[in-house]
Amino acid sequence: MEITRRLARYIVTSEPSHIPDAARREAVRSLVNWLGCAVGGSQHEAVEHALAALEDYQALPQATVFGRRERLDIMHAALVNGISSHVFDFDDTHLRTLLHPSVPVASALFALAERRRISGPDFLHAFIVGVEIESRIANAIFDNHNTDWYITGTTGPFGAAAAVGKILGLTEERMTWALGIAATEGAGLRQMAGTMAKSLVHGRAGQNGLYAALLAAQGFTSSVDAIEGARGFAKVIGGVADLTDMLQGLGDTYEIELNTYKPYACGVVAHPVIHGCMRLREQHGLQASRIRGVALHVHPQALKLTGIKAPRSGLESKWSLYHSAAAVLVRGAAGEHEYAEDCVRDPTIVALRDRITASEDRRLRQDEAHIRIELDDGLVLECHVEHALGSVDSPMSNADLAVKFRGLVEPILQPEATDRLLQLCWALPELEDVTKIARASVPR
Amino acid sequence: MEITRRLARYIVTSEPSHIPDAARREAVRSLVNWLGCAVGGSQHEAVEHALAALEDYQALPQATVFGRRERLDIMHAALVNGISSHVFDFDDTHLRTLLHPSVPVASALFALAERRRISGPDFLHAFIVGVEIESRIANAIFDNHNTDWYITGTTGPFGAAAAVGKILGLTEERMTWALGIAATEGAGLRQMAGTMAKSLVHGRAGQNGLYAALLAAQGFTSSVDAIEGARGFAKVIGGVADLTDMLQGLGDTYEIELNTYKPYACGVVAHPVIHGCMRLREQHGLQASRIRGVALHVHPQALKLTGIKAPRSGLESKWSLYHSAAAVLVRGAAGEHEYAEDCVRDPTIVALRDRITASEDRRLRQDEAHIRIELDDGLVLECHVEHALGSVDSPMSNADLAVKFRGLVEPILQPEATDRLLQLCWALPELEDVTKIARASVPR
Repeated sequence: MEITRRLARYIVTSEPSHIPDAARREAVRSLVNWLGCAVGGSQHEAVEHALAALEDYQALPQATVFGRRERLDIMHAALVNGISSHVFDFDDTHLRTLLHPSVPVASALFALAERRRISGPDFLHAFIVGVEIESRIANAIFDNHNTDWYITGTTGPFGAAAAVGKILGLTEERMTWALGIAATEGAGLRQMAGTMAKSLVHGRAGQNGLYAALLAAQGFTSSVDAIEGARGFAKVIGGVADLTDMLQGLGDTYEIELNTYKPYACGVVAHPVIHGCMRLREQHGLQASRIRGVALHVHPQALKLTGIKAPRSGLESKWSLYHSAAAVLVRGAAGEHEYAEDCVRDPTIVALRDRITASEDRRLRQDEAHIRIELDDGLVLECHVEHALGSVDSPMSNADLAVKFRGLVEPILQPEATDRLLQLCWALPELEDVTKIARASVPR
Repeated sequence: MEITRRLARYIVTSEPSHIPDAARREAVRSLVNWLGCAVGGSQHEAVEHALAALEDYQALPQATVFGRRERLDIMHAALVNGISSHVFDFDDTHLRTLLHPSVPVASALFALAERRRISGPDFLHAFIVGVEIESRIANAIFDNHNTDWYITGTTGPFGAAAAVGKILGLTEERMTWALGIAATEGAGLRQMAGTMAKSLVHGRAGQNGLYAALLAAQGFTSSVDAIEGARGFAKVIGGVADLTDMLQGLGDTYEIELNTYKPYACGVVAHPVIHGCMRLREQHGLQASRIRGVALHVHPQALKLTGIKAPRSGLESKWSLYHSAAAVLVRGAAGEHEYAEDCVRDPTIVALRDRITASEDRRLRQDEAHIRIELDDGLVLECHVEHALGSVDSPMSNADLAVKFRGLVEPILQPEATDRLLQLCWALPELEDVTKIARASVPR
């Protein structure tokens, strides 16, 4: 069955008029969320280290590092903006697959836009098409794949290559090559959880896809059945053979409509627990010192991916259900500050963390959890979370997204510039040139 | 079992005095061979396309593209020199694993050398250590791995990271991170055979390893059990759990001593057939028009990897036993010219190709083959190749390597400059600054 070429044909022939309004609206919400994360993460030490490593070895000040004054050539801007927008683990999630759809596509497109003018409508269209491609590939493989691989590292290059290739106006043949090059650059091991290398995997995804499209545009060849071939992506990296679903409804349905945004700055599978702990804290005015023990009941995936008992760093604490629950019970929040180094070492949080147990319950959905808190006087409080805030069934509103955006961006840009940047993001579909957004993200 | 950290400790503590002369000699031979391939491949259209794609998006003229006048920043020089040195499929092979050891390590080191002076002895030491690391990792995983992956794409980043990290003087902790970052960037699908993307995989390996070491040098963290961890490289990409051999004899034996060089510009598993066809042609003054049919008997791997019956391009013809046998029977050679576009379309070669059959024989070793040729008068000629030229048991001599080097480099540099470059390569262990070699590779 021909897959790679048919995906390429879809990308090449897609027209803005094909895109339904709901997809367009969700794409703008995705970009608002992504940009807040990119600016918010831009002062993280992972970004500092990456910039220091590259400083001497790259060159033309072509493109913006969002939230910073440094400028990089576009290849490295795509990389570093990818790192910063993911480093808080606060970006978006395609919940079915755990793909983070925006990071590769937006990082690559915003970088390219600084060498080649891209209008808001063209940007939005290319972004939606890119997200569609990576999500469809992710849908086909996630089941066997997610325990071992970062699916954004493996499928993200397809999304970035598709979006950049769309802007460059590649022919069907060259778009097929671009997807083929993207296929052979997919990478990213879950062993990196809790380290800076996780954000590198996500930054590389966009950079690799950008390279892939630029190379293919010059006639650089690759396999034309890179996804479906006997030694191709689906079999070797995805471990699957049946790809019929990959083309089902292509051009009719849009995966971007299933995108979700995190209210909490950690692995999404921990969110139902955080949501429930926050509710119990607010309802009962809980004090950590009064809590004798906490029992969490979660979907098996939550324990598998966020089961670290005693995290040693801010980045590691994002993969600890125990830290998440303790931090939110003590501080009443689970934003980027609750996953910073000082919070991980806070004695009150550490002490409470050690009184928390978690067990898997296969009857629960991934966005569901049950929490049981016992107080020192023997009182028991319970909470069942049907759908965590930020899931498809309980989405963050535009107002929620704006609050999140301001929380991330104001410490870097100050309130007035933050408002201006936020307005520009909402107005992206009308911009003549999207670099306006990049310029507005730079602190004065 | 601690693997990643122990490999890092070995890299950090290795001293030039530990290296035996035989390893040192083989390293110089490896570099002579690699440099000939890099200059020889530098005019290939894959290199032209890569340069055109990067032209507008990279920057400082920091480092040499071997065999060309363009200069690139060191990140992209590592990439492009990796592409050109592999694009003819003429570089070296660690036969047990089919790893191409030099391309990632040499591409990364020569690029770094143009920003930070590296003496010949230091270069050689770092090169040997880098090859040791990637080869040991390859030894542990090749069995399950080689059918689907380019092992140089997956293990090469470790070699480049180790070598660059050694030159940068990383601490044990940062070297562990460098290997961890390299682990999560391994990539490269065999589906790319016969396309330019294959050389890209090999160029990326060195570039990724270079990045990994530069990032780790700044404190960019990664998993410290990236190779052996439950979601680490060995399990996820290598499909293996038993890694005890990886540390066996570390520091006592040197894998570089097992390196081999190709007399023919194609997949190494086709070499026994080429060797035998060449011998029959010479012994009997064979003419293609008189050949009724050819029956090849080969190791199963040869059919699996070079089984393309009707290659459509020069790059694809390197993966066709049939083309290789036909080309050598018609032209008496199997250098880069016999895998160029015009040779693949040569009617005499195409006609003979279609009269060739190949079958696997599990009793044969990988460097062994049997050839049976029937002539139009019914005469049958047979040849059994015990060890193909270029195998460990029948190595290319220094004189053979010099002939190969001149054949590759003279068309680009002219004879006098070729001799000078060759002399510099042999003299690498005494150079004060290895960039002398890079400068001497540029055509006037």
